[in-house]
Parts: sequence; C-alpha cells; structure tokens
Amino acid sequence: MYPILTLTGQGTHMGKTAAMTVEELEAFLAREFPQAFHPGCGLTIEMAEYGKARVRQAYAEKFIRPGGTISGPTMMMLADFALYVAVLSSIGPVALAVTINLNINFLRRPAQTDVIAEAKILKLGKRLAVMEVHIFSEGEAEPVAHVTSTYSIPPVSAG
Amino acid sequence: MYPILTLTGQGTHMGKTAAMTVEELEAFLAREFPQAFHPGCGLTIEMAEYGKARVRQAYAEKFIRPGGTISGPTMMMLADFALYVAVLSSIGPVALAVTINLNINFLRRPAQTDVIAEAKILKLGKRLAVMEVHIFSEGEAEPVAHVTSTYSIPPVSAG
Amino acid sequence: MYPILTLTGQGTHMGKTAAMTVEELEAFLAREFPQAFHPGCGLTIEMAEYGKARVRQAYAEKFIRPGGTISGPTMMMLADFALYVAVLSSIGPVALAVTINLNINFLRRPAQTDVIAEAKILKLGKRLAVMEVHIFSEGEAEPVAHVTSTYSIPPVSAG
Amino acid sequence: MYPILTLTGQGTHMGKTAAMTVEELEAFLAREFPQAFHPGCGLTIEMAEYGKARVRQAYAEKFIRPGGTISGPTMMMLADFALYVAVLSSIGPVALAVTINLNINFLRRPAQTDVIAEAKILKLGKRLAVMEVHIFSEGEAEPVAHVTSTYSIPPVSAG
Repeated sequence: MYPILTLTGQGTHMGKTAAMTVEELEAFLAREFPQAFHPGCGLTIEMAEYGKARVRQAYAEKFIRPGGTISGPTMMMLADFALYVAVLSSIGPVALAVTINLNINFLRRPAQTDVIAEAKILKLGKRLAVMEVHIFSEGEAEPVAHVTSTYSIPPVSAG
Repeated sequence: MYPILTLTGQGTHMGKTAAMTVEELEAFLAREFPQAFHPGCGLTIEMAEYGKARVRQAYAEKFIRPGGTISGPTMMMLADFALYVAVLSSIGPVALAVTINLNINFLRRPAQTDVIAEAKILKLGKRLAVMEVHIFSEGEAEPVAHVTSTYSIPPVSAG
Repeated sequence: MYPILTLTGQGTHMGKTAAMTVEELEAFLAREFPQAFHPGCGLTIEMAEYGKARVRQAYAEKFIRPGGTISGPTMMMLADFALYVAVLSSIGPVALAVTINLNINFLRRPAQTDVIAEAKILKLGKRLAVMEVHIFSEGEAEPVAHVTSTYSIPPVSAG
Repeated sequence: MYPILTLTGQGTHMGKTAAMTVEELEAFLAREFPQAFHPGCGLTIEMAEYGKARVRQAYAEKFIRPGGTISGPTMMMLADFALYVAVLSSIGPVALAVTINLNINFLRRPAQTDVIAEAKILKLGKRLAVMEVHIFSEGEAEPVAHVTSTYSIPPVSAG
C-alpha cells in the first residue's frame, strides 16, 4: 500500500528504455556485490526503469532500535541501494559508479515493518547523476526519510 | 509556463488553511525584513498555502555570471525566501523561525530570465520543519536546482 | 597511526568533563542497542570526552566492495555511531537523542582495513547538536570521508 | 582577532605553490565576475594559498536581519566566494569550475560586524574538489556557520 510516486513532468525520463531489466540487475548485483546482495539479505528490486527504481528491505529484528523503530543506518543503506539500482537501470552495468555524497533528512519514526525506497534521477549528466530518494514504511503514505545524492559516473573507456 | 507541482498524496497538508494570506505575508515581510523585501527587490509571492509556497525573483543584470547564467547565491537566496514563506503560511508570523541547515544541488544552468522557487513542507513538527524546494527558470520544465532545508521553530511563548 | 585531531580553539569544550566514561558508554549501548552494539560487532570506543569521540570498526570481509574498498553504508553506520557516542559523552545517557539529518562526502577509497571515525561537536545547544566527523582508514593521514550531522535533543522531562 | 585555522596534517597541501597570487585573483575576478566582485562590494581576499583561502565581507546595513544578525544568504554568498577563491588559487584561472552542491549548517547568530570565511580543500581530484568552509564573525573564536561543498572541475581543453 505504499504510494507510487508519479514522475510526470520529469521530461528527461520520457520515452527512454531501461538499460537493464530487474533480472539483469539482480544477476549483476549478486555477482559484483555478493557481500551486500545475497540470498537472505532481504533486499529486493521491485521496479527499475530509466531514471527511477523502487527497492525493498524486508523487516528483520537486527534493524530495530529502542522504541521499536528502524535504525538510521538501515535507511541509509537502503537509500544507497536504491540510488545504485537507479543508476544501473539508466546507464547499464557500471560497477565503478560511485557515491560522491549523500544527504539524508529523517522525517518520521519508521514502523516495525518493511522499508521501501523510491529513487528518482533529477539530473543525469555525462559525469554526474543527481538523485533523490523517498523512503517509506510499508503501508504508510508519508515518507520516513528523504535523501539527495550525487554519483560520479566514470568516463567511458576506449577499450 | 513553469510547472505547477502537484502535492497530491502529501496527506498532512490536506484540508488545512493557510495561516496568512499573500497580502498578510507581504505586509509582514516588508515590516520585519525591509533590507530583503522592499520595493525594487524583484521578489514576489505567487502562491502561499498551508505547507507550500511559490515565489519569484525577477531577472536583473546583477544576478548574471559568465556564460549568461544566474549566480548560485541568487538561487540560494530565493530558496531561503521560499522556505520562509512556506513556514509563515503554515504556522503564522513567527519572525524567529530560523534556518538550521540548507543543502542545495545545482542541476542545470539557469537561463537569463526570472527564477521561480516552489517550496513544500515534508514534515512539520512542533520544533522542526523539513522542507524541499525546486527551483526553475521561467518557462522551463526541468528544475535548475533542488534544495532541502530544516527550520527550527521557536517554542510558543506563554505570554 | 591515524591522526589525532587537535581541538584547540574550540572554546566551548574547554574545561568541561565528559558526562559518561567509556565503560559507562559501553554498558549503556550494550543495554539499549543490543542489535547494533554486541560482542562480535567489531565496534569499539577509543576515546570519549566532552564534545568529541573516536570510535573504530574492525575490518570484516562483509564490508568489502569491488576493488577491495569498504562500503559506503559501513562508513555511514560508523559515523552515526561516532556521533551518538559524542552526544552521550557530552550530555549523558539520553536514549532518545535522534539524528535529524546527516550529510556525507566521500573523499577517497578506504583501504581494506579498520575504519576510524572522529566526531567533534561544532555547536551544542539546548535542543540541537551540530557535529562533524572525519573518517579515516587505519594508518592513513587523509580522511576517506567527512560528515556533518544534526541531532535533536529531547527536552528534559519534568519527572 | 578571528582564529587562523591551522591546516597541519592535511598532507596533500604541503609544499605546493598557489596557482595565483591574491593580486592575480582580484584581477581575474574583477574581469570575469564584475557583477559580484566590484569596487564597493565589500569583499576582500585576505589569504589564498594552495588548498585554502580566507575572504571577508565588510559589514553593511543591507545584510542585517531582525535581532541585529547577518542574513543567511549573506553567509552562503560569502562561503561560495571563499570556495571559488580556494579552487582558483589551487588550479588556476578556471572560470568554468562550478558548484555542484553546497551544504550549510548555521551554528550561532552572527554579530553585526564583518564576516570572515575560511575555505579548505578536503580533496582535490581531477574532476571534483570537495571543500569545507568555516564562517566567523569578526573577533569571535567560534564559527557561526559550517559549509561543505563539491565543485566540478572542467576537463583540461586540448587547445
């Protein structure tokens, strides 16, 4: 029941095709990032298109903090994952795209349930991608956190 | 022809009334901030409702930088103005609401024209307001900059 | 061989005593945050004084990313831990001090070794603490990441 | 009486020579940015070396806000100026170095006096520079604001 962000008006994304399918993304991540993306990690890719992605972290007891809330680092990790999936689905399997910076605002206490992150590319340049992420608790309409982040995109190699 | 951001789905804002009209806002700002908001400053409030505001900086030659673009500080100033108007229209004439932090991502080179900033409150608490601003060049659909910011709201005095 | 940041000139910190010792901090964290701070987590508090703290994450294979570097979320988690320890050592055992926002800049690729985070309070107010963190790879003089963050400090309860 | 930040331990800056003198910087800025840097603007460059710079905004009534404090946009503008001077003094007259993002934390209310900004480069890469700025009121030891910012450095042209 999480909200589906509409991206109308974001003209740059219109009519372009994802560089990778969800299946290709999962295979790439399992091969390149086995420490982060492995059976049992609880991460799933729910949607990946050109310029946007939605991912989910299944609830696990280890993420809980006092008061029954989900830890901040869990949300930062999930945002980072959503950002990377959005980059990959837009420009293809570039293992070396790296986070330059990430700014997170914590808005509400997340509930003791799955966490969902929706990433959207605000600007995709040749060298940089600027993105935002809204993080939701499963079933809630208001975001629990908001992230902006910049990625550096490596130059295309001549080889 | 700038885009009008739809705020559907931001349930907290629904059904609440602005604490001040545009006319009340202008009178308050002219009285409290005469150095910033005065005849000839080129700032106008285009819309102010509960949880959101849209403001405009009229083009002036002094804002120009090499290549015919608008300076970064001009956009930061306009974002700050939009944030303050959104706070005022939501909680009323609180001169002492102050910016705690402001994070701006520059996305595209603004054109040599008016600049418009649309602020939206992401979370309005008793002590803090977290907001975002999209900044546009007049007539363009893609934002030239994106801002997130937190304001501290002073405790209500007993007097 | 990581650098020890000198905090001279930060006059607000001078002559004040830590609210908690390292032993008291460890006991508090083990009791309140058993999911994060437990035997085997690899986190240690190396120093905690009024206004500052230094913590360490022992190297573990699960933190590694392609190219032999440490993952971004590992650094964000460690920064968050350093921030919380600096808050606790300055104001005492306040389980409900919460992160409002966190901004991280990734500067260099961390080596495949321990990661150390040094937090410093820039401003400690009644309601807010603003801090910065420098993150280092063990044995390196240049930081691998820099963080600024704001914490909300709950009002002292009357009870 | 503002503090002089010591930059010891920032090994990358050691032993390198500034790419431009203060006089060369002033001439470049007056030529390229006449709208911002002109006689009467009140901006001065107090120090510019490889990797760091200190600049000053002379007090003027137009910067004042209610309560006798200096406006936030004044500090953002000054930080941006300090950042650009630090970039120029490190890599030379590159008019097209542009701000990607800027994050400012407001720490204390600045006094009704000159404002000084000290910029330091945290990381100078081929494509990006990451910097921080401490902003002080004249005569005060504690910063009134802290800024981190990333600049994009254009590729060296073949010509």
